[in-house]
Amino acid sequence: MTERPNGHRPTLEDVARRAGVSKSTVSRVINGEPKVRAAVADRVRQAVAALGYVPNQAARSLVTRRSNAVAVVVTEPQNRLFVDPYFDCHLRGIRQELVRRGAQPVLLFIEDPDDYPRVGTFLGGGHVDGALLFSLRTDDPLPAMVAHMDLPAVFGGRPAGGSGHRGRGYASVDADNRGGAREAVRHLVSLGRRRIGTITGPLDQTSAADRLDGYRDVLLDAPAELVAEGDFTLRGGADAMAALLDRCPDLDAVFVASDLMASGALRVLRERGRRVPEDVAVVGFDDLVAIAEATEPPLTTVRQDIEDMGRLMARLLFERASDEPASRDGRPAPSSVVTPTRLVVRASA
Amino acid sequence: MTERPNGHRPTLEDVARRAGVSKSTVSRVINGEPKVRAAVADRVRQAVAALGYVPNQAARSLVTRRSNAVAVVVTEPQNRLFVDPYFDCHLRGIRQELVRRGAQPVLLFIEDPDDYPRVGTFLGGGHVDGALLFSLRTDDPLPAMVAHMDLPAVFGGRPAGGSGHRGRGYASVDADNRGGAREAVRHLVSLGRRRIGTITGPLDQTSAADRLDGYRDVLLDAPAELVAEGDFTLRGGADAMAALLDRCPDLDAVFVASDLMASGALRVLRERGRRVPEDVAVVGFDDLVAIAEATEPPLTTVRQDIEDMGRLMARLLFERASDEPASRDGRPAPSSVVTPTRLVVRASA
Repeated sequence: MTERPNGHRPTLEDVARRAGVSKSTVSRVINGEPKVRAAVADRVRQAVAALGYVPNQAARSLVTRRSNAVAVVVTEPQNRLFVDPYFDCHLRGIRQELVRRGAQPVLLFIEDPDDYPRVGTFLGGGHVDGALLFSLRTDDPLPAMVAHMDLPAVFGGRPAGGSGHRGRGYASVDADNRGGAREAVRHLVSLGRRRIGTITGPLDQTSAADRLDGYRDVLLDAPAELVAEGDFTLRGGADAMAALLDRCPDLDAVFVASDLMASGALRVLRERGRRVPEDVAVVGFDDLVAIAEATEPPLTTVRQDIEDMGRLMARLLFERASDEPASRDGRPAPSSVVTPTRLVVRASA
Repeated sequence: MTERPNGHRPTLEDVARRAGVSKSTVSRVINGEPKVRAAVADRVRQAVAALGYVPNQAARSLVTRRSNAVAVVVTEPQNRLFVDPYFDCHLRGIRQELVRRGAQPVLLFIEDPDDYPRVGTFLGGGHVDGALLFSLRTDDPLPAMVAHMDLPAVFGGRPAGGSGHRGRGYASVDADNRGGAREAVRHLVSLGRRRIGTITGPLDQTSAADRLDGYRDVLLDAPAELVAEGDFTLRGGADAMAALLDRCPDLDAVFVASDLMASGALRVLRERGRRVPEDVAVVGFDDLVAIAEATEPPLTTVRQDIEDMGRLMARLLFERASDEPASRDGRPAPSSVVTPTRLVVRASA
């Protein structure tokens, strides 16, 4: 149980005394600085826990003018997080890198248009040193909101508005969606497929639009009936697959813009008695191993390293928050990073 | 796309002009106050989004001295959230009630002992007006940390240390775990079962310990071999079921302390050729409908209204933060609420 020596709020001194180390060592451990031996750091942490010690934030802020917290803003219904391993993966990478640098991740959800001004107020209120955002829809006010704040920000995925906003500008980390889609469709062509459809994500999201562009780069003359819009959910993938089969019974391949949608599409193909890959070859996108290795047959898909993209977002944010070179007008230049994708061939195509 | 009339950071006036309403109407919508017609509120929100307007937090804080944000602290690995619908349900209730009152939920995870001081620093730094916490392990430093801060706090589940901490004290919302477990075991006894085992949660958590106490209230002389400790995961439930069957092949019933563990236990019973409920009757705990109605056979279980408990936590927090009557020493008294449970009979017992 927790012990308090004299009943007062425990101090840094109390922690140092109990752990048998100097106050500056306690400070270093608490601020997540390296160069403390693991055994010593453990003793300090045990003392912190036993005493219920809480560092004095007001005192720290005067020195650093920082909250040591970073907002992670997710524009999805909270329950999407619970069914889509994509987010789990992304957040794991982000969290790893933030915590490694001693920053507290603070998760905010936008589920509803009403949430924007409230989230904006929090972001602009000095409670966080920066923000990592996922804002992918064409009409999303987040890029403009963040551009008006003096807050370092990095977007996961390319925001729809480009980087033309006034203000601080922003960075983004995106996968090579278009290139990955091209590789997927070229693979289907190389297998001799002639009626290749695609199931897209919601086309007001840049990742979905970019993947469709990649499909069209290869199949310049693909008729509109071969394109069905999904919503990045399993059920959406199933519904779009059913629609494609109704419209084009002679379909012999489909490029599906996410693994979760692809697993829904595989279910429908099985129900309709189509063999995969013999009758219809299927390629997904993401390479979420928990899905892609579990489908029947295992899914050929385009790999993007989602966890690494999360880590990269956090790293970019710290660069922007610290000594990034300023651009001509004295503001840091927006910077965007596009990470490579590659085809992982399993059994479905 | 976002429009900015003169290139400056958009103001409350800009929003009012664009929406064709008064500044005070804009204020009311942004602060989540009721009494604005839905059509008018929609116009304001559209103007906010189109302009990328961000309310001026510094100005608001001077008036209210509040951040209008509430921390939700979850002491679980983030990926637990993605496999256990319990948390989804709890967070949904919390979020609903916070948002209804215009407060921004801010989600913090504690996955590692290193996280405590960092989370404590954030909680104590004036960034949130209160905290909702899930802290259930005996050696958890959170109750003591929060007790040292001038921060209203409500715990989900009864903290292990009781309410004896100095400082502000805290409230908690807990289900009647012991009473629910008693009802479950009495039900098994009433079915004529004679060798009734139990699979518990981790016994350093109060909810797990309370449910085991309820089991023992009814079966005073149950031998230790009938008790197997699980960890509230599906695999933990399966492993504990296998251990029980190895030790007590004549087992004819089992009370499992969570639905997720019960679904793992049912899988093992099926693999071992035991019919449910004919050979072994099974009762779970939680009534997570997504699980309990999907198991084969559907699960008889103890219902706790998890979403409502989330709402209740948020309501209690607002009461404590506002005009709760003070106790004798000038501090608000800790208050704890225990919500009722009830048995839902399906096919497994």
